[in-house]
Amino acid sequence: MKLTLIGAGPGDPDLITMKAVKVLQTADVIMYDALVAEELLDYCRPDALKVYVGKRRGAYSCTQEEINPLIVHYAQHYGHVVRLKGGDPYVFGRGYEELQYAQQHGISVEVIPGISSSYAVPAAAGVPLTSRGLSESFWVVTGTLKDGSFSNDLRLAAQSSATVVILMGIHQLPKIAALFTELGKADTPIAIIQNGTTTNQRVVAGYVHEIVERVEATGISNPAVIVVGEVARLANHPENAQFFVNLQA
Amino acid sequence: MKLTLIGAGPGDPDLITMKAVKVLQTADVIMYDALVAEELLDYCRPDALKVYVGKRRGAYSCTQEEINPLIVHYAQHYGHVVRLKGGDPYVFGRGYEELQYAQQHGISVEVIPGISSSYAVPAAAGVPLTSRGLSESFWVVTGTLKDGSFSNDLRLAAQSSATVVILMGIHQLPKIAALFTELGKADTPIAIIQNGTTTNQRVVAGYVHEIVERVEATGISNPAVIVVGEVARLANHPENAQFFVNLQA
Repeated sequence: MKLTLIGAGPGDPDLITMKAVKVLQTADVIMYDALVAEELLDYCRPDALKVYVGKRRGAYSCTQEEINPLIVHYAQHYGHVVRLKGGDPYVFGRGYEELQYAQQHGISVEVIPGISSSYAVPAAAGVPLTSRGLSESFWVVTGTLKDGSFSNDLRLAAQSSATVVILMGIHQLPKIAALFTELGKADTPIAIIQNGTTTNQRVVAGYVHEIVERVEATGISNPAVIVVGEVARLANHPENAQFFVNLQA
Repeated sequence: MKLTLIGAGPGDPDLITMKAVKVLQTADVIMYDALVAEELLDYCRPDALKVYVGKRRGAYSCTQEEINPLIVHYAQHYGHVVRLKGGDPYVFGRGYEELQYAQQHGISVEVIPGISSSYAVPAAAGVPLTSRGLSESFWVVTGTLKDGSFSNDLRLAAQSSATVVILMGIHQLPKIAALFTELGKADTPIAIIQNGTTTNQRVVAGYVHEIVERVEATGISNPAVIVVGEVARLANHPENAQFFVNLQA
């Protein structure tokens, strides 16, 4: 009985690691999430069981509380289970909860990291999270908190010179923009990248004070990564040439 | 003329992406850094030129100012140059500087992300940067600043509930521990992982108030990743069973 938690990366199927591919080729069961590229299933054994446990498609959706016992069930009945998760299992991936649950049921667990969207999606839009003279640190937070409010951390982050990265935060964008504005950052560059690293990638950028309007005009939504800070100035966004030109001037 | 900036990952050669391997197989020149696993060069064409530009080995070392014109030289004379860099090119990798320099010389540039040590090294020691109830954000800073002092960012980070990750900071550990202690975090867990994801991985963990002594006793040094926060409690460290046992209690 074995569980391997695998990070499938940010979207582009070629951004999976060699280590992950080698495990996919041997696993008995692959339980995969919504944001995982389906091409990755081609690496699996033809007789491997492929189980979709995403939360976005069709009528049926799995909660974490349903996934955990399923992992144990498949490990007990089939042997080696892979949990193939978007991004990295330990960066907002709830991987540790799955590891803990599996270990409590006597299943040995290995974790194979994946390329996290937090930096790879900005990079795909031309934005380095750090760059000498522009940013010497970065802070990654999630935009969806259980009780609907932001943690005090986002307030501290907004006061810092760090690049701030907000995952799955598009629905909170008006609140985020208001917070940065309140803290004197209305004129800080901000970029939003939807479906980063895939062929459907879309980028919107601007200054904090105008970004809500720009996003509404384009209809961009999750899955999206928000980057706030001077480095966001470097975003490539052909849809948005005016902004780009302004910033270069 | 083409430059591809490739992240080689944190150390384990299998943690490179499929996308990177495909490019390595076709490139004319590979300029590689000190922290890159040499096994990765086996993917290259037998006739590809392999150029070591690391900063750690032997008498000769390249500065960034020397590397930039070398990239242009090789691109002009050989065609497709790969810059193979440890971790990710855009996470403290100075990749953007190389992209900018190359583009200014008429060379087209592509960036392929790598697994960043910032989260993959903690993961290899059992530490998730985020986990429900323990940490909902993380902040990544570098421990080596040009003028020898910390940015105000580290002070803000230390006041937050974020997991704080410090790269290449082992020589600053006494100052880091003093800062966290000053901000009321003497009893926060801290883990230090040297050579993470490789066969030489070593882990030391403890509380902030005792970590300097523990690190001195083990002789751990760079390349190392420092993680401060409740999640550091989860570090596997066989060398340090007492701490582990204490924390489980």
